Amino acid sequence: MLNRPNDQAFGDPAVREPALDVEEAHVDMANALRALAMDAVERAKSGHPGMPMGMADVATALFTRFMKVDPSRPNWADRDRFILSAGHGSMLLYAIHHLIGYADMGIDEIKRFRQLGAVTAGHPEYGHTFGVETTTGPLGQGLTTAVGMALAERMMNARFGDEIVDHHTYVIAGDGCLMEGISHEAIDLAGHLKLGKLIVLWDDNGISIDGRTTLSTSTDQLARFRASGWDVASVDGHAYHAVVDAIAEARRSDRPSLIACRTTIGFGAPTKAGTEGAHGAPLGATEIEGARQRLGWSHPPFEIPENVRAAWLGVATRGRAAREDWETRLAASGRRAEFEARIEGELPADFDEKLTAYKRELSETRPNVASRKASEMVLGIINAATDLTLGGSADLTHSNLTLTKGLGSVAPGDYAGRYVHYGIREHAMSAVMNGLALHGGFIPYGGTFLVFSDYARGGIRLSALMGQRVVYVFTHDSIGLGEDGPTHQPVEHLAMLRATPNLHVFRPADAVETLEAWQLALHAEGTPSVLALSRQNLPTFRTEHTDENLTGYGAYVARKPKRRRDVTLLATGSEVEIAFRAADMLALRDVDAAVVSMPCWELFETQSADYRRQVLGTAPRVAVEAAARLGWDRWIGERGRFVGMNGFGASAPAPELYQHFGITPAGVVDAVCDILTCA
Amino acid sequence: MLNRPNDQAFGDPAVREPALDVEEAHVDMANALRALAMDAVERAKSGHPGMPMGMADVATALFTRFMKVDPSRPNWADRDRFILSAGHGSMLLYAIHHLIGYADMGIDEIKRFRQLGAVTAGHPEYGHTFGVETTTGPLGQGLTTAVGMALAERMMNARFGDEIVDHHTYVIAGDGCLMEGISHEAIDLAGHLKLGKLIVLWDDNGISIDGRTTLSTSTDQLARFRASGWDVASVDGHAYHAVVDAIAEARRSDRPSLIACRTTIGFGAPTKAGTEGAHGAPLGATEIEGARQRLGWSHPPFEIPENVRAAWLGVATRGRAAREDWETRLAASGRRAEFEARIEGELPADFDEKLTAYKRELSETRPNVASRKASEMVLGIINAATDLTLGGSADLTHSNLTLTKGLGSVAPGDYAGRYVHYGIREHAMSAVMNGLALHGGFIPYGGTFLVFSDYARGGIRLSALMGQRVVYVFTHDSIGLGEDGPTHQPVEHLAMLRATPNLHVFRPADAVETLEAWQLALHAEGTPSVLALSRQNLPTFRTEHTDENLTGYGAYVARKPKRRRDVTLLATGSEVEIAFRAADMLALRDVDAAVVSMPCWELFETQSADYRRQVLGTAPRVAVEAAARLGWDRWIGERGRFVGMNGFGASAPAPELYQHFGITPAGVVDAVCDILTCA
Repeated sequence: MLNRPNDQAFGDPAVREPALDVEEAHVDMANALRALAMDAVERAKSGHPGMPMGMADVATALFTRFMKVDPSRPNWADRDRFILSAGHGSMLLYAIHHLIGYADMGIDEIKRFRQLGAVTAGHPEYGHTFGVETTTGPLGQGLTTAVGMALAERMMNARFGDEIVDHHTYVIAGDGCLMEGISHEAIDLAGHLKLGKLIVLWDDNGISIDGRTTLSTSTDQLARFRASGWDVASVDGHAYHAVVDAIAEARRSDRPSLIACRTTIGFGAPTKAGTEGAHGAPLGATEIEGARQRLGWSHPPFEIPENVRAAWLGVATRGRAAREDWETRLAASGRRAEFEARIEGELPADFDEKLTAYKRELSETRPNVASRKASEMVLGIINAATDLTLGGSADLTHSNLTLTKGLGSVAPGDYAGRYVHYGIREHAMSAVMNGLALHGGFIPYGGTFLVFSDYARGGIRLSALMGQRVVYVFTHDSIGLGEDGPTHQPVEHLAMLRATPNLHVFRPADAVETLEAWQLALHAEGTPSVLALSRQNLPTFRTEHTDENLTGYGAYVARKPKRRRDVTLLATGSEVEIAFRAADMLALRDVDAAVVSMPCWELFETQSADYRRQVLGTAPRVAVEAAARLGWDRWIGERGRFVGMNGFGASAPAPELYQHFGITPAGVVDAVCDILTCA
Repeated sequence: MLNRPNDQAFGDPAVREPALDVEEAHVDMANALRALAMDAVERAKSGHPGMPMGMADVATALFTRFMKVDPSRPNWADRDRFILSAGHGSMLLYAIHHLIGYADMGIDEIKRFRQLGAVTAGHPEYGHTFGVETTTGPLGQGLTTAVGMALAERMMNARFGDEIVDHHTYVIAGDGCLMEGISHEAIDLAGHLKLGKLIVLWDDNGISIDGRTTLSTSTDQLARFRASGWDVASVDGHAYHAVVDAIAEARRSDRPSLIACRTTIGFGAPTKAGTEGAHGAPLGATEIEGARQRLGWSHPPFEIPENVRAAWLGVATRGRAAREDWETRLAASGRRAEFEARIEGELPADFDEKLTAYKRELSETRPNVASRKASEMVLGIINAATDLTLGGSADLTHSNLTLTKGLGSVAPGDYAGRYVHYGIREHAMSAVMNGLALHGGFIPYGGTFLVFSDYARGGIRLSALMGQRVVYVFTHDSIGLGEDGPTHQPVEHLAMLRATPNLHVFRPADAVETLEAWQLALHAEGTPSVLALSRQNLPTFRTEHTDENLTGYGAYVARKPKRRRDVTLLATGSEVEIAFRAADMLALRDVDAAVVSMPCWELFETQSADYRRQVLGTAPRVAVEAAARLGWDRWIGERGRFVGMNGFGASAPAPELYQHFGITPAGVVDAVCDILTCA
């Protein structure tokens, strides 16, 4: 039999929660996780046994001694967050959830691991399974999302105090998480902001899919984290008490902590332990049999002895007591309603009224401003009307215009502010915003140039997959940014974002549409939004006020034809002005054009077929957008024409670029006259 | 007048190249760069004066004492590479190029900074301006591309020896480059591989766009780089001799080196120096006047005194001598033809013959394999037929099947191999491959899952913008990957890649098309390629051999209708089999279907209108692809139907997922019978 995990002398971990009676039980408790993991993967004929088996001791230490969760109230606001950043080890999470009694995680679901409709998806999916705090799988996302959660905790604490908000964020991260670039952005930001309640347990097993990690990395991770202001420690990840001590020590720090847990991947497997063979495939019957012997685990698959079950249920008992204490404190605080509305993210009752009043003002004053500037003006109203919003930018504040008066900066040790300087870290910004939204209490928005949505793709996709109310303020949304040239000019990005499921991509054409887009974004509780905004000024064409949010239709007729509709010009954003001017020119040539503004394709797609037919019309259609054509054929049809970009941009003043690429009223007229007879 | 940069005692930098007589001249030489930068930005009314003014002394030290370039032969293979990773400081580069005499960089071009068609684009653009080694601007890309160049240098050195290949790669990186996540991937990989001839000069000015870098970062960069195996040093970036000494010391190291150059952004500007105000906007006439006084530079805009010009031209003189020596050594080596063919990336004369012979074999043996497996089989032939190819994977070698027999691994200090373990670093892989391709001598290909193209977007876009022959092997290309679930199942990624200009996106449907896609990718000297490959097995339908590469048409009729064409089924990759089976089912219902395989939309778009009409036909069209619809309307037209994904995937065995999402022969038949009368 394999040496049992080494019991070191038990120190005083200064754990506030009462310790479970696990002095004897912890080895079996960990082995229960190992057995469930290897057996579920075997039954599914697919999955990753190595990480759960390697990290079972660490997870047991964390949950038995520290984790504050109440499985009967998975969404309790002051629970500790546990993030399995190495999401492929999902069976570790599911096994724990099964044993501590989450209602959805019966043994039948464990047996249905990775089957259609089971809560035991291949990777943990937020919203699909109780207690899964965030969707993980793409490596590094969980770690970075956890930074957002830990930041949200400090910010909510700054607003509600220790009695109501005081919880930890624990992460299990693998070598992959620490090799991905996003991990640098995460640890730099977390260290800078002194997120002391963030504790990362690194599964330091020295193995990646290709083989030993020494094939591709030599970084001293402890030194690296230390360089970014973290506390660091290294322990034998199979030594329960050493792990307990390290976590206790980490909890005492006012800096984020990394604990390197030296483990053996696939711990217990007789021939595959310590090798990449244990990582991502079923172990096979013989290996599993051998593992049972080595671990001293004689129980049949999916059977857990009562004493082990009872020991694990202690985690739930302790959590329930903590939650009940907290409910009492919350009730006594006199701030229950305020707190709950905040956590739910409820906009104030007069929110829309204020926005609509400002919309009327915009229709009257008709500002000729860039839509990024309009966004700033609207944010001034929004940020005064609600304090749920939390601004930020990836170091382009004065370009994105995301900062409004009176929002203080979030700073190390001072979390009262409402503006995050994310640094030059687009990817982390997206994932941190996911964490802020998931935690509750904030509606995060963050800015960068539209072209750098490239760098944030990984996080944007998870915003959409998890249905989080996150707002991406992507300015400088076309060749209209001018001289910075093709590296800074988005071309394919609108298509990339429009192709992403459950993402609203707004490209407003004037100040009124910008306001409407913001209004829709803030109300879309299950959908992230992108606001693609211009650098250059745009006239206000929505000069007739409507209480109704026309952008909510996704597309609408912005200029009616005079008599008959000879052609329909479709446009978004800064090109709506071009369509209007083309319509004027066409009128001189006896062509009667309607102009349709299409600020949000996704919302237009949800309208009735009748409405869509009415907007698109039966006349030929010409679209104009300073971007790639991909996707436009749906709207212009086979007879249609597209005026836009055929390749990358160039460096020059914006007006010259529009001329150079033929994205002009005259270009639109030419396209129309190519399919119609023009006078 | 401002204190002139501090002249420290001049040590012995062990510089092999003869030093210029710059003891007295270097201050004026640096000020010439500053003046050209601030004046060009002022004239353009746009640009970034702060970095060139801050780094002028460092650049002067580098170029006067070390850089080995011959402006009369910008593409000399053994030149040092200089990478301005902080690409917004482009005027630094252009000013140097002007002064050392690149033929395209006359003073008129400096005056046309950022104007349409000028070689002085807002950011340095590869292929647009002599001596620009790579396109920079998106932060961190230059640094990481430089890692690829430094790796290529060592690998070419391993093949041709010190006499023919022996050059350095120098990088100027800013705070932004070091904050971006990709920088972690770059320095981890470079440190691991001991790329001792890579020297990074960090413009450590403490300023980012939002303000002081202390707003968002506290990382000790020296400690961070040291943790990843770099040599580090910190110098006063305005002390010429200290910089010279530090570079000389770095050149002696067998590890990559970071030199933190403490500088003042906008050095010389009376009120804006040391502030974000100097970063990204013209200084204004008054500030420029003040800078001239402080710097002691009395010359009018764009005028450089003869003695300063002469000093700078010494760089070119030294470079030309070095290049001529090298030409002599190359001629004497007896390997000139071999070396030049290699640098040009010429495939062997019998390359296509070997591939075509194997294609015939595949048509005959008709393997039923995943296209990722077919890719491995084809790579076996390719990697034996040419040693230009350089494989790799972001730690998914056994899933991507990118490693063929006999390719040794590239390892620290041992660069003879042909396979790079990129680690879990998709972004770095893309940028490093760009660097390998730009350097010359290799055709890099690298693998990951298609969904993780998200993480590599920044690098992929630059492959396309720079027109580099880089091959992305993206396997597990749909819900066909099965149990790993929605985080691992691409949906919008084909659209994202197809929307990208100058990128060929291949989704081959069987082993024969996979071979043809590889053949096209390797011949596309100015275009990167994506191969989207299946996890699941696909039958070979191309059972009739053609010498001609049908995939080169982008789309072709794979199954002719029997009598008349009632409907055309369009499909790519793994869904072509579904289309075939649907056609069989439709035949039973008296519907005569053509099946069109569309492995590469971009190539299809380049065919004649006649050919496209002939392939697409006039009958209604139904497309089937296990991906987002965006883009398909172009091919199916207004009457058409699309069978594919409407949202994210799910975790289950692949066949169940295809059923669940209705992407089946029956689903296609239903779609057809929705628009046609079926018996």
